[in-house]
Amino acid sequence: MYFQTLSKPDGRKLTLYSRHPIAAGITAPSPSSDPVRANPHLRWHPLRGEWIAYASHRQARTFMPPPEYNPLAPTKDPQFPTELPEGNYDIAVFDNRFPSLIPSATDAPQLLVDTLPANGKCEVVVFTQDPQSALSALPLDHLELLLQVWGDRTQAISQHAQIQYVLPFENKGVEVGVTLHHPHGQIYAYPFVPPVPRRMGDCQLEYYQKHQHGLLQDLIEREIEDNQRILYQDEWAIAFVPVCARYPYEVWIAPLQPVATFLDLTAEQRVGLAKALKTVTLKYDGLWHRPFPYLMAWFQAPVNGEAHPEWHLHAEFYPPYRTADRLKYLAGTELAAGMFANDALPEEKAKELQAVIVDIGNS
Amino acid sequence: MYFQTLSKPDGRKLTLYSRHPIAAGITAPSPSSDPVRANPHLRWHPLRGEWIAYASHRQARTFMPPPEYNPLAPTKDPQFPTELPEGNYDIAVFDNRFPSLIPSATDAPQLLVDTLPANGKCEVVVFTQDPQSALSALPLDHLELLLQVWGDRTQAISQHAQIQYVLPFENKGVEVGVTLHHPHGQIYAYPFVPPVPRRMGDCQLEYYQKHQHGLLQDLIEREIEDNQRILYQDEWAIAFVPVCARYPYEVWIAPLQPVATFLDLTAEQRVGLAKALKTVTLKYDGLWHRPFPYLMAWFQAPVNGEAHPEWHLHAEFYPPYRTADRLKYLAGTELAAGMFANDALPEEKAKELQAVIVDIGNS
Repeated sequence: MYFQTLSKPDGRKLTLYSRHPIAAGITAPSPSSDPVRANPHLRWHPLRGEWIAYASHRQARTFMPPPEYNPLAPTKDPQFPTELPEGNYDIAVFDNRFPSLIPSATDAPQLLVDTLPANGKCEVVVFTQDPQSALSALPLDHLELLLQVWGDRTQAISQHAQIQYVLPFENKGVEVGVTLHHPHGQIYAYPFVPPVPRRMGDCQLEYYQKHQHGLLQDLIEREIEDNQRILYQDEWAIAFVPVCARYPYEVWIAPLQPVATFLDLTAEQRVGLAKALKTVTLKYDGLWHRPFPYLMAWFQAPVNGEAHPEWHLHAEFYPPYRTADRLKYLAGTELAAGMFANDALPEEKAKELQAVIVDIGNS
Repeated sequence: MYFQTLSKPDGRKLTLYSRHPIAAGITAPSPSSDPVRANPHLRWHPLRGEWIAYASHRQARTFMPPPEYNPLAPTKDPQFPTELPEGNYDIAVFDNRFPSLIPSATDAPQLLVDTLPANGKCEVVVFTQDPQSALSALPLDHLELLLQVWGDRTQAISQHAQIQYVLPFENKGVEVGVTLHHPHGQIYAYPFVPPVPRRMGDCQLEYYQKHQHGLLQDLIEREIEDNQRILYQDEWAIAFVPVCARYPYEVWIAPLQPVATFLDLTAEQRVGLAKALKTVTLKYDGLWHRPFPYLMAWFQAPVNGEAHPEWHLHAEFYPPYRTADRLKYLAGTELAAGMFANDALPEEKAKELQAVIVDIGNS
């Protein structure tokens, strides 16, 4: 992996990553030279026992730009700078211009609930220079690089002493509200372990202490034995519709052997995960012969310095469709009660995806 | 309150509620005479520590029927029976034909995670016979009746020994996936306390044990002192944008004095809550001069027989819009991490709603 870190005119950082050496002399553009004026804060929600982030400057963020201007494509005309320069890189990561969390948040209003400056970090990860591409279209070694990039970002962001959790994710498709169609994801880094990964960590720790074995590792072993919902498997990695899927087309990807974070992945595991990732995204796009929207999140251990032998890095995909023409709306029982009701059996949806034959190539 | 309980040809129950005596001799129709064949089951999600409900028969449920057939309107032509009869009632409640949870679930498959029959209950609450109406258009005494109906349903459903939690809610608008536009809500009754109310209960109990005072009661007192986000207040009830709103136009409605469930409400509190409910829904519809979509949920104490002095019945509204033409999509940070990021300050959104002048009438 080769990389180069640059500063944008507005002070934000840009890091270019490549499978090949990157030529020197690249300068980092920005759509605006105004410094980012975000000063988000957190408010405590006493009835839910959780923090909410407020970032009122975000209402102005980019929304469905006309096709001639794509802020995530390399800058062609210096009169209209985008977020990225031209150059021979594969993946680029930069500080979000409209962050919900920032490393240097200073103020929080005095209110009737506890408040804090919203310390953290929001980064944008551009997966490729090609605006028409997608994870499913990238070569395997490009996806391996992406897994390395997520590891590098996890390490870099963890240098901020206040960061406790790093979450890479991709929102894909207008159905999940994506305003820029250039292939990209985001990284949110939190000054606390957010509710969902905290719960996952608690469940994994309780199981590990009781069984001296990983919770997800055991679940994966039983999924392999059951052999009903598996979409991809090799010596290193697996992809499957979990037996407890909350979304009809939910899929998980994981290394077979537990690792706590991206930094702990071996090269072989990255190869396996890249193949699993390509298989799943190709199957999704192949299912209805059109780009398949989803939220993809990679859950890893907190980065607060402790060892987490109980944690098992993995990805979860939450697609918004329940059939080719019907969305699964989250409503009363999901959003108010927190209990998901799934109209589809995971076994049936796994069969649909298993039936989509894909060719992931060799590199 | 007057009521009459009937049986449908397919065995489901229908209860008619009215402010006035209901004429005898009404028979309950059903769109189908086939008995409900649902046999939903629950699967344990080990990584989240929660139950997921699977009800694969639900994929066939009613979806955007043509305007000439409305299953929630009174039956006009016996050739095409709806869910409701003609008659002089105001509100009707019947067993959902496509339930996620049923009182007599028997089977659960043997799987690699724990499973259970999905015992519980799903009811439909038709708010009025008029398909063109809405909560905002109903007279105050009709809304008071609705609060009584929710109490009566809570009591009736609690007779099932396995039920631990009763949640009335309304999904309103195509933006939240509503397929039938006739004004109606639903009731889900769970064989466990679901994750969100469980968390609310834990937070309230911890606060109550420490302060011998209600958590929401104290928050309301501080909201009144702060006087920035209040939309309605009288001697008995209040409506406000909470200081910790997760959705831009989130609103809560509560009695000023804590009560654990709908059954504990006094007649005066119901009058106050009805006025608050009418005020909020009129303000919503008045904001952009069009019907305003939302998810409204009423949180009450569990019904497992214990006293819950810590619990404070209240409603929370989650509207999907962040501006008149932009939806707030739940994506990476909300769905994957569980941390909400709100683009809008609650103080600003409260001002917008405060500026909408409404007339709730006198009855």
